[in-house]
Amino acid sequence: MTILQKIAQARLLSKALASATKLLSERGESNSASMATDLLTSYKSLTDDQKATFLSNLATQFNPEPAAVTTAAQNYAAKPSAKSLIELTKVAEPPRQELLRRINRSPGGTVGLLEMRRDLFKLLSKNAELAAVDYDLRHLLQSWFNPGFLKMHQVDWRSPALILEKIIQHEAVHEIDGWDDLQRRLQPDRRCFAFFHPQIPDTPLIFVEVALVQDIPAAVGPLVDKKSAVSASNSPRVAVFYSISNCEPGLRGVSMGNFLIKRVAEHLKAEFESLRTFVTLSPIPGFMDWVIAGAKVGETNPKLAIPQRLEKALDTLNLKKQSWPERLSGGWSPETATPADKEALESLCSIYLMFVTPEKNGNQVAKFHLSNGAKLNRINWAADLSKKGLRQSAGLMVNYLYDLATVEENHEKFTQGEIISSRLVSRLV
Amino acid sequence: MTILQKIAQARLLSKALASATKLLSERGESNSASMATDLLTSYKSLTDDQKATFLSNLATQFNPEPAAVTTAAQNYAAKPSAKSLIELTKVAEPPRQELLRRINRSPGGTVGLLEMRRDLFKLLSKNAELAAVDYDLRHLLQSWFNPGFLKMHQVDWRSPALILEKIIQHEAVHEIDGWDDLQRRLQPDRRCFAFFHPQIPDTPLIFVEVALVQDIPAAVGPLVDKKSAVSASNSPRVAVFYSISNCEPGLRGVSMGNFLIKRVAEHLKAEFESLRTFVTLSPIPGFMDWVIAGAKVGETNPKLAIPQRLEKALDTLNLKKQSWPERLSGGWSPETATPADKEALESLCSIYLMFVTPEKNGNQVAKFHLSNGAKLNRINWAADLSKKGLRQSAGLMVNYLYDLATVEENHEKFTQGEIISSRLVSRLV
Amino acid sequence: MTILQKIAQARLLSKALASATKLLSERGESNSASMATDLLTSYKSLTDDQKATFLSNLATQFNPEPAAVTTAAQNYAAKPSAKSLIELTKVAEPPRQELLRRINRSPGGTVGLLEMRRDLFKLLSKNAELAAVDYDLRHLLQSWFNPGFLKMHQVDWRSPALILEKIIQHEAVHEIDGWDDLQRRLQPDRRCFAFFHPQIPDTPLIFVEVALVQDIPAAVGPLVDKKSAVSASNSPRVAVFYSISNCEPGLRGVSMGNFLIKRVAEHLKAEFESLRTFVTLSPIPGFMDWVIAGAKVGETNPKLAIPQRLEKALDTLNLKKQSWPERLSGGWSPETATPADKEALESLCSIYLMFVTPEKNGNQVAKFHLSNGAKLNRINWAADLSKKGLRQSAGLMVNYLYDLATVEENHEKFTQGEIISSRLVSRLV
Amino acid sequence: MTILQKIAQARLLSKALASATKLLSERGESNSASMATDLLTSYKSLTDDQKATFLSNLATQFNPEPAAVTTAAQNYAAKPSAKSLIELTKVAEPPRQELLRRINRSPGGTVGLLEMRRDLFKLLSKNAELAAVDYDLRHLLQSWFNPGFLKMHQVDWRSPALILEKIIQHEAVHEIDGWDDLQRRLQPDRRCFAFFHPQIPDTPLIFVEVALVQDIPAAVGPLVDKKSAVSASNSPRVAVFYSISNCEPGLRGVSMGNFLIKRVAEHLKAEFESLRTFVTLSPIPGFMDWVIAGAKVGETNPKLAIPQRLEKALDTLNLKKQSWPERLSGGWSPETATPADKEALESLCSIYLMFVTPEKNGNQVAKFHLSNGAKLNRINWAADLSKKGLRQSAGLMVNYLYDLATVEENHEKFTQGEIISSRLVSRLV
Repeated sequence: MTILQKIAQARLLSKALASATKLLSERGESNSASMATDLLTSYKSLTDDQKATFLSNLATQFNPEPAAVTTAAQNYAAKPSAKSLIELTKVAEPPRQELLRRINRSPGGTVGLLEMRRDLFKLLSKNAELAAVDYDLRHLLQSWFNPGFLKMHQVDWRSPALILEKIIQHEAVHEIDGWDDLQRRLQPDRRCFAFFHPQIPDTPLIFVEVALVQDIPAAVGPLVDKKSAVSASNSPRVAVFYSISNCEPGLRGVSMGNFLIKRVAEHLKAEFESLRTFVTLSPIPGFMDWVIAGAKVGETNPKLAIPQRLEKALDTLNLKKQSWPERLSGGWSPETATPADKEALESLCSIYLMFVTPEKNGNQVAKFHLSNGAKLNRINWAADLSKKGLRQSAGLMVNYLYDLATVEENHEKFTQGEIISSRLVSRLV
Repeated sequence: MTILQKIAQARLLSKALASATKLLSERGESNSASMATDLLTSYKSLTDDQKATFLSNLATQFNPEPAAVTTAAQNYAAKPSAKSLIELTKVAEPPRQELLRRINRSPGGTVGLLEMRRDLFKLLSKNAELAAVDYDLRHLLQSWFNPGFLKMHQVDWRSPALILEKIIQHEAVHEIDGWDDLQRRLQPDRRCFAFFHPQIPDTPLIFVEVALVQDIPAAVGPLVDKKSAVSASNSPRVAVFYSISNCEPGLRGVSMGNFLIKRVAEHLKAEFESLRTFVTLSPIPGFMDWVIAGAKVGETNPKLAIPQRLEKALDTLNLKKQSWPERLSGGWSPETATPADKEALESLCSIYLMFVTPEKNGNQVAKFHLSNGAKLNRINWAADLSKKGLRQSAGLMVNYLYDLATVEENHEKFTQGEIISSRLVSRLV
Repeated sequence: MTILQKIAQARLLSKALASATKLLSERGESNSASMATDLLTSYKSLTDDQKATFLSNLATQFNPEPAAVTTAAQNYAAKPSAKSLIELTKVAEPPRQELLRRINRSPGGTVGLLEMRRDLFKLLSKNAELAAVDYDLRHLLQSWFNPGFLKMHQVDWRSPALILEKIIQHEAVHEIDGWDDLQRRLQPDRRCFAFFHPQIPDTPLIFVEVALVQDIPAAVGPLVDKKSAVSASNSPRVAVFYSISNCEPGLRGVSMGNFLIKRVAEHLKAEFESLRTFVTLSPIPGFMDWVIAGAKVGETNPKLAIPQRLEKALDTLNLKKQSWPERLSGGWSPETATPADKEALESLCSIYLMFVTPEKNGNQVAKFHLSNGAKLNRINWAADLSKKGLRQSAGLMVNYLYDLATVEENHEKFTQGEIISSRLVSRLV
Repeated sequence: MTILQKIAQARLLSKALASATKLLSERGESNSASMATDLLTSYKSLTDDQKATFLSNLATQFNPEPAAVTTAAQNYAAKPSAKSLIELTKVAEPPRQELLRRINRSPGGTVGLLEMRRDLFKLLSKNAELAAVDYDLRHLLQSWFNPGFLKMHQVDWRSPALILEKIIQHEAVHEIDGWDDLQRRLQPDRRCFAFFHPQIPDTPLIFVEVALVQDIPAAVGPLVDKKSAVSASNSPRVAVFYSISNCEPGLRGVSMGNFLIKRVAEHLKAEFESLRTFVTLSPIPGFMDWVIAGAKVGETNPKLAIPQRLEKALDTLNLKKQSWPERLSGGWSPETATPADKEALESLCSIYLMFVTPEKNGNQVAKFHLSNGAKLNRINWAADLSKKGLRQSAGLMVNYLYDLATVEENHEKFTQGEIISSRLVSRLV
C-alpha cells in the first residue's frame, strides 16, 4: 500500500465514525436513509482492524448517562406518571439503539447490520465490552425478525437456484451431497420449509427438512438416502423433522426455529388429513464425551438410584480396558455389539437426556426441543451409523414428539426443571 | 343483554388481561404466536369501556421498577462495563415493550396493534396515563415501519380496486370526487406513489400525488381538474407534489412522508431525464385564523420592522369594519380584490410563514416541508379558489422547493431556527 | 386535408397492401415479426374507406387456385397417400390463412387482428365477399382462443381497476350501475369469473356472474340489488349463473361461454362441498315479440294439441282489444295480473321455449344453454319487473339447470332436435 | 400379463379410437375439454404397438373426401364467391386438424400432442403414411407456437432449478458439465434467454447462450471455460451467440430460433448502449466428412475456378497418404499444423460454406443462420480444439454476423441462392 492509499484508508475510518455521529444528530432525523447508506459504504471498505476500532467506538460512545438515568428513576419513583416514565425510558435506552435503527433505514440496512454482527462475533472474545453492542443488535434483530414479519415458504425444485444453493451450503445436520441429493430431499415424500424476511428475500434464514412416512423412524439412513425410492403414498401418518439449520449467522440468538417447526406442523396438518404424529429424529451431541468424562450428574432424586445405575453401566462398558476411540477403530458397531453393551449405553443415554440436559453445558439439541414443549419420546439403537454418529453418540438417536395440544404446558414444566418423557424412555432410567 | 351475556362479556376482559400477563411470562416465550392471537381475539370483542380498562391496565402494570433502575444505574456509574450496562438496559426498558413485541408475533399482530393505538387516541384526553402506552407503541411502530422495511409502489389504474378505494377515502388535501376523478389523477401526466408494509400489503400507508408539468404551478385548480386534457409531453420539467395523505391513523407520529417524497423524487428523476424541479403546491392552513386573531408574532429581528408591517397590513385590510366571514359571504374573491388588499395579504402571509411556522401551534404543513429541508419558494395569489381555500388562506397557496442537493443542509438550519426562503418570499417581508 | 396530406394518406394504403404481399412472400418467412408490425401500423392509420379497400383486397387476393385444388384432389383420389394428401392440403388452404398467421406473429398481432375483425363486421352487410375473410379469421381465432389456452381467473375487489372497468362496461344482461354496484357483486356471496388470454392479459374476454344462495331463485331483483345484505353463510347449496357477457366483440362466434360455465362449476364444486345445484336465471328475449306476432310454431306432435293451446291462450290474453305496449303503459304488472293471464302467458312461454328455440330466429339464450347440455328447469312468474323484463317477456324468466353428469348426453339429444325439460315445464304445455 | 390384463389393455385401444371419433362428432362440440382429457389418458396408457395402431388410424381416417373437394373446387371455379370458397375450404381441410384442435382444448392438451408427435417420429420411417398426421400436427403447432404467443425470459441463477436442469440436459452444442458450469454461464458477462409458451411454463422451448465481450471471438474455449474470470466490464461491444439448443423435440420443424435470436439482439441492444456487433461463433458440422468424401460441389461459376482450387487443396492435404482419423490419432493439431495445411483447409472450408450450404444435405447450422439473414463473416483457425471439433471441422469455426439493418435483404438474397459473405471469407475462395 502506498502512503496515499494508507491515508485514504485511514480517512474511511474517520468518515465512518463521523457518519455515525451525524446520523444520530438532528441532521440524521430527516435525511437518515442516505446517511445510513454512506455509513455502511464506508464501513464495508474498512480493514479488519479499522472495523474493530469502529465497533469498539460503538461500544464506548452512544451509552446512556448514568446520572441522568438515576435522576429520572428517582423522579419516577417519587411521582409515578406517564410523563416521568417516558422521561426515564428516554434517558435509559442506549442512544446506540436509535443509531442502529437509523442505519436500518437505508435500503441495504438490515443486511449491513447482519454483516456487522458477524464481524462482531469474531471480536467478542478479544474485547468483552463489545457485548453491549451485541446486546443492542440482538435486541433489535429479535424485534425485526419476529415471526409476524417472517414469511414461511416451501422450498422445492421450482425454487430459484440461488436459494437452493444456500440450502446445500448451510445444511448442518445431515450434509447435502450435491444437487442430486438435494433433489431427492425435495420429492413429494420429503418437504423443506424456510423462513424469509421481506427485506432479504433471497436468503432462507432458517429451514427445516421433513420426511413424510408411515411410522416413527428408528434410523436416519433411509431418510437421507439419495437413492431411496420415492413413496407413492398420499396419506402419510408421521411427519419427521429430521434436520433444522440456520443460514444467517448474523441472527444467532434470535429465536426462529421454534416458530418455524410449529408453523410447518400446522401447514402439513392442513395439507394431509392423514397426519397423526409430528416427531423429530435428532442426534445426541455430547453424549459419548460425557460418558468418557465419567458420566457425572448433579443431584438427583435418591429414589431413582441414578449413581448406582451409572456405575453399573460404566462397569459394563469398561472403557478403561479399551477406550472409546480404540473400540471404534477396532470396528465396534451397534449392529454387532453385545446385549450388555446395548443395555448399558441406552441406560446411560436416558440418564444423559433426562438429567444433564437442563444444565448449562448440556445438549443444545435436547434443550431446544424440550424447551419448545416437545416430549422425549424414544431412544433409537443403531440409528446413525455414520462415523460422526458413532463417535458422538454410539449410533444412538432420539425422537422428540411435538403434540401441538400439549406443547405449551410441556414448555412451562420444562422451564420449571421438569423433563417430559415417554414411559419408553423413563423405563430405561 | 341478559345476565348470562353480561357474565360472558365480563369474562372476556379477564381473559384479555390474563392473556397479557401469560404472554409476558416464561410460557409466552415459546408459544407467543398463538397466545398473541388469543389476546387480540379477546381484545377485539371487548366493549369500549372494557378496552379502556384493558389499556389502562397496560399503562399501570408492565412498568419498570424504579428502585432496580436506580441501583443498576449506580452500579453502571460506579463500574461502567458491558455487563453493568446490559443489566441497566434490561431493567430500565418497560416490560410493556416486550409485551407489545410479543403481540406483534401473531399473524395479524401488527394490524391489531394499530387498531389498539386508534382506540388509545380516543381515550388519551380522558386518561393522561395512557401516554406511556402510546409512547411505547409509537416507539416500536417507528422501528417496524422504518423506511428500510417499507416498499414504495406506484399506484395506477392497474392497481387493485381495494387499494384505489382507500386512496379515494383518505385523500385529505384535495378531495377525490369518485372513480373518474381518481382515474384522471392516474393518467400519464399524473402520478401516485404509496408506501406499503409487507405485513399489511393491502393498505397504502401514505401516498403522494404528483403532477408532471412544464412550469411551477401558481394555482391548484388546473392540477385537479378531472376534465383537463392529458398532456402528451414525455419531457416534463417540473414534478409537483400537490397532495400527501396518510391512510393509517394508527401510525400517527411515525415519520414516513419525508422518506416517501425523497424516494419518489429519486424515482422520477431516474424515469425522466427532463425533470429539473421538484416542488409542492401547498395549502396554508391557519393563516387567516392567525390574521383574524390579530396576527401576533413573537420577538423578531428589529431591523425587519415586522410589527410596523403587520400593523400597516391589518389597517389596509380593516377587518374591524367588515369581518373576514362577512367579506367572504359578500363575495370577496382574489380575482376582484384591490391591489392594496393583495399586497397586504401577501405581506402578512410571508410573515406568517417565516415567523410563525416554527412555533408550537404554527402551520404543520410548512413545518413538515421546511423540516424536510425544502425551501419556501413562492407565495401564489388566487391559487385556491375553493371555499375552503378562501376561508383558510384567502386563496393563497405556497410552493416549497425540494432541491435534493441542499435538503440536508436546509434541514439542519431549520432545526436551528432558520427559515430557508427564496428572495421572492423574503422580499415580501 | 391538404393535397400533401391526401397523398401521404393514399400512400398508407399502398403500403399496407404491399406489406401484406411481402409478408406472405419468402421474405416474410424469416422476418415476419417486424413486417407484421409494419403492416398493422399502416392499417391502423387508414381511413374507414381505405380499410374497406384493404379488407376487400384481402378477400379477393390470397385465395386458393381452383384448378390446382381440382388436380390435387384428383391425384389424391387416384392414388391416396400421405404425399398426395399433403399436396392437396397445401393448395386448398387459402393463402390468406397463412397471411393472418404471420400477422399474428408480431407482439400486438392478436389485438390487431381482433380490431380488424371488428372493422370487418361493419362492412359485411355492404360487401358479402368479406365473409371469406371473416371465415378465415374466425377459424384461426377459434384455434388460438381454444379453452386450453385460456386462463380462468376470479375477478374480485383485488383485481386491477383496469379490468373491473371493463366488467362494468360490458355487463350486457343486468347493467352494473357504477363501482358500488360492482362491489356488491364481488362480495363473498357473489362471484365473478372470467377467461383471459395470455396475449391480452388486461382484457376479460368473457365473464360470468354467480350468486351463491340456498334455493333456486325465482326472481332476479334480489340477486342484483346493490343494497342487499351480504349472506354470512359459508355453505351455499345453489350456484346461480345470473349473467354472462362478452367483452371482446372481435371474438364473435368463438365459443367460450360453454367452457367457462363448466370450468366455473367445477371450480365452485371444489370450493364448496355444500353445493348441490348449478342453475341459471335467464331472460327470455323474443318471447313477447313472438306472442305479438301471432305465436307461430312449425309442425309439432299432433298429440300435444299445440295449435289449440296457443289459440286458447291468445284468446285469453286478447291483445287485439288492447295491445301489449298499451297494456304495459296502462300499468299491467305480473303482480296484479289475473290468474287467467298468468296461466296463458306461462303456457305460451313453455311452448315458445320448447318449440321455437331450435329454429333459426329463435331465442339465442335458450339455444346457448340447451346446446351446452343444460335442462329447461322452471319458468318463473314475476321474475324480472324491470321495464325491459316486462316488455320482452312479461316479467317471466327461466332457470336452466346444469347437471354436470348429464350435460354431455343432453347436448347430443339437443343436436338431434330434442329439448330437455323438467316436468314442471312440460306440464305447462 | 394375465389374460384379463391383456383384455383390459386391448380395451384401452378401442377406447382411445372411439374417443377420437366421438370427440370429432356433435357431442364433442360442446364437451370437448373433458372428452379430450379422456382421449389423452387412454392414449398414454397404450403400449408402443397400440400407439402405432392408433396413429395409423389417425392417418387413414379423418381425411377429406376427394370427390367433395373436386366438386367444391369446380363450383368455386365456376362461380367464385365467398360462399363457394368457404364451402371449398371446409371440405378440403382434413377433419384430423379439427380433431387435433379439439384435443388441444383439454388442460394438458398441448403437452399431450407434443408427446404424440414424439411417438410419431419413432414410427415415421416404418410407416410413411404417418407423414400426413405429422404434417397436420406441425401445421397446428406452428400456429400455436408462433412468436407472438411465446414469452422470452432471461434464464439466470434466480430461475427455478426445474428450468435450469432442463438447460443442462438439452445444451446440444457445448455440453454443460454440471451446476457449477451452468452457474458460470449465467454470470453478468454471459446471458441465457429462452422462449416459453404460457401453456407449458416450466419448459424452456429453445434457448440461446450469449457471451458479452469486447471483440469478435476467434475461439470457443475461453467462452465456455467454467474457471474463467468474470469480466467486470459494463460496456460490452460484442454479443456472441455461442450456442442455441431446443428442449422440446415435439416441436421439430417449428421455427423459433430465428425469432429468438432477433428478439434477444433487440433486448441486449436496449440494455447496453455500447453493443455494436451481434455475431455467432458456430461449429461447421459435416465439413471434414465432405472433404473426406472428396469435396464434391455442384456447378459453380466457371470464373471462380472452384474445381481447380479444390483439387489443389486436396493434393496439399493428401489424405490418401494418411487418412484423417489416422492423422488425428497421430496427434495432428491446428496449433502445430503446417502453413500449407492451414491454407488448404481454410480454402476448402470457405468453398464448403459458400457452395455446399444451399444444397439439400448441406450444413444445417450455416443454412439456419444464412436463411435468417446473417452474413458469413470469418472463418477461425484453431477455434475449437475439442475432440469433436477436430474430427468434424479440423478445429475450424465460423462467425455469422447479424446486422439487424440488413438481415431482411440478406434473407431474401439467400432464398434466391446467394450466399452473403464478408470479403475475408470470399477472398479465401
